[in-house]
Amino acid sequence: MSDPLRIGIAGLGTVGSGAVRILQTNADLIAARAGRAIEIVAVSARDKSKKRSVDISRYEWIDLPEDMATDPRLDAVVELMGGAEGAARSLVEQSLETGKTIVTANKALLAEHGAALAEMSDQSGAALMYEAAVAGGIPIIKALREGFAGNRIKAVYGILNGTCNYILTEMRLTGQSFEEVLKRAQEKGYAESDPALDVDGIDAAHKLAILTGLAFGVKPAFSKMPIQGIRHITVADINHATDLGYRIKLLGLAMQEEDGTIIQSMEPCLVPHDSAICGVEGVYNAVYTEGDFIGTSLLVGRGAGAGPTASSVISDLVDCARGIKTPVYGIPAQFLKEARWGGLSDIHRHFYIRLSVIDKSGILADVSAILRDHQISVEAVLQRSPSPDQPVSIVLTTHDAKRSDVSTACDLIAKLKLVVEKPTIMRIERF
Amino acid sequence: MSDPLRIGIAGLGTVGSGAVRILQTNADLIAARAGRAIEIVAVSARDKSKKRSVDISRYEWIDLPEDMATDPRLDAVVELMGGAEGAARSLVEQSLETGKTIVTANKALLAEHGAALAEMSDQSGAALMYEAAVAGGIPIIKALREGFAGNRIKAVYGILNGTCNYILTEMRLTGQSFEEVLKRAQEKGYAESDPALDVDGIDAAHKLAILTGLAFGVKPAFSKMPIQGIRHITVADINHATDLGYRIKLLGLAMQEEDGTIIQSMEPCLVPHDSAICGVEGVYNAVYTEGDFIGTSLLVGRGAGAGPTASSVISDLVDCARGIKTPVYGIPAQFLKEARWGGLSDIHRHFYIRLSVIDKSGILADVSAILRDHQISVEAVLQRSPSPDQPVSIVLTTHDAKRSDVSTACDLIAKLKLVVEKPTIMRIERF
Repeated sequence: MSDPLRIGIAGLGTVGSGAVRILQTNADLIAARAGRAIEIVAVSARDKSKKRSVDISRYEWIDLPEDMATDPRLDAVVELMGGAEGAARSLVEQSLETGKTIVTANKALLAEHGAALAEMSDQSGAALMYEAAVAGGIPIIKALREGFAGNRIKAVYGILNGTCNYILTEMRLTGQSFEEVLKRAQEKGYAESDPALDVDGIDAAHKLAILTGLAFGVKPAFSKMPIQGIRHITVADINHATDLGYRIKLLGLAMQEEDGTIIQSMEPCLVPHDSAICGVEGVYNAVYTEGDFIGTSLLVGRGAGAGPTASSVISDLVDCARGIKTPVYGIPAQFLKEARWGGLSDIHRHFYIRLSVIDKSGILADVSAILRDHQISVEAVLQRSPSPDQPVSIVLTTHDAKRSDVSTACDLIAKLKLVVEKPTIMRIERF
Repeated sequence: MSDPLRIGIAGLGTVGSGAVRILQTNADLIAARAGRAIEIVAVSARDKSKKRSVDISRYEWIDLPEDMATDPRLDAVVELMGGAEGAARSLVEQSLETGKTIVTANKALLAEHGAALAEMSDQSGAALMYEAAVAGGIPIIKALREGFAGNRIKAVYGILNGTCNYILTEMRLTGQSFEEVLKRAQEKGYAESDPALDVDGIDAAHKLAILTGLAFGVKPAFSKMPIQGIRHITVADINHATDLGYRIKLLGLAMQEEDGTIIQSMEPCLVPHDSAICGVEGVYNAVYTEGDFIGTSLLVGRGAGAGPTASSVISDLVDCARGIKTPVYGIPAQFLKEARWGGLSDIHRHFYIRLSVIDKSGILADVSAILRDHQISVEAVLQRSPSPDQPVSIVLTTHDAKRSDVSTACDLIAKLKLVVEKPTIMRIERF
């Protein structure tokens, strides 16, 4: 057997400790599969004295993670500190410059500086591997970059944030509000104390930006994505969806139109009960891919947690030990195009619309007239009054309609005297 | 860009023609991803004059496929003739001997001679790639060999035959019998004129044997697998299952027990309605993997047809063009163990039992007594009489019970005077 692959791990939080644990627990198995041992030489984290769940006493402690980039004893550096800037970015850039393989779970970094990093990787020949950055234990990066390599990808859909999916699932099962479920998720460690990155859709959007780059051979552009989180979803929305035969998911969508335009968006959508993605609940993630020859494919797995994400780190390390190197976004960085981004306004879908009105007398006629005037035909109507003194909910689903028409119509509906709040609009996605 | 990867394709049936079409249609995309062009130099098939759906006039025709093995112009040979013996085996063996990479979709060959072929591959250094052999467009070989490489795999479950899954789905949706649906599937080209390989579970078992080898690092042993197909499944079984909250799937199971024993089996099972695998219908396949760190993962995709399977052939060719080579079963052949095979008799599950009885008076008491005497407790009972003159069906589901106890009890039940046919027993698998 060859020399071991010598690595340094920077960042010993959930994923970093998880990676150490896997390398310790399955050392022999991993060595057999990789063709050589994977040996942790050095570790680095913010606080040396912190009590940890894994024994790191055998490894050299390095105070400044950036020092790993130039450490001649290391074949590869594992960056698990996170963040699009600061020490993480500097460590990754320096490692790529000095020709050292980087394995990372840093979705923000890849989404925001991905194209530049891909060029650095191509120039120095050092691989940049990031299976752990998207969808925890689902090998979606490998699937898109290698498994589906013969296909022109048409669309990628995904449930990419375990925290949001957990919250939506719990709201449905318990009938508790977003705030109540979030609080419980934080107590259980399923949500961060600052939950904004998760519940506002930023984390999921970072991941989708990476998938978009990979699927369509374009420079990732997180900043071009319309993003909506799940804070505004009510238990009423979830119950209405159930009654209509749907569940609500925070769903990323990246698709390429016939003319080459790419649409990407991250927002809550309704998916039908009989779709496989509908059954993806709790902390599970799912990525649905459509290619010109494979047709449709769905990959489901745990989206968060030490085990699944660290498992993807190890997968990259095994590839690295085997000498496998593929371009960061599947094709050489020089071929990555600037995408022409299309908006969602021209997209045709069925839509879910929830209105809150003071009194239903006559209101349905007014609403219907506005919809009709905008070429929107109604598929189903539900009316619910949560309690006598509260405004009445009117819920509509539409037949195929243009999103901009739906938005315009809802803006007019919002101005009706009896409508008390901004209508909630969600796309219905069928699989 | 480097020299093209020059290939020969032996076999121009559905998958072979599909591979030619993908290489023609997506040539530029594939070259960008592979780092170089993939160039078809020569083709071979049984009948040169046959009219085909793809233009092969640019490629050299080779009469004897085995000649490709020694053709110095070829970097890799794609074997798509099929069959565990004959020309296919001889082409693959000769190619490996002469150090030429083989890409194949041949599950029978891999399942029956896999360990010997892995040794030949290791000895000559020529890769043997077979993503297309299992589950069409699902990159499950890559997932097990690379994506989940950090994990000790505990179990692999799968719907591995699109024909069977299509038949079971159609039986449920149309209420037509196995024979009727099979006939229609044959007319549509979804089933072979000799359907035995598919409907008797052989094809799916070949695939499972390969997954077992890969998942647990053992020599594949197709001959050690208990196999049951779907010919005996009735519409009544399917309807009973629906009433009880289940669907019937031809399900492969490979699992490693705590003591290292490996159990593999291919037989129809009931899966609950709320499981993701239950929603995998028609020609779709699914593979569910459980690892010690990833937890559970489900991969779903089209299991048959030109596009998905050929797409996996191209994925292997792209890896080959990139210079990626991994051991055939994930670890060097010399480390592949002879598995200790466990039987299903000790397995504990809930079971579905269908009895056909002449008259129910007193019979339920007799049946219940036998079950009780074998420590089998009943969870649910359904009685259905299809029409007045026919025997009555009694359907039971059990709580957790040992399979051998269920078999013994059913053997005794079969001997009861009022029981008119051998009881149908199926495992219930929960996910």
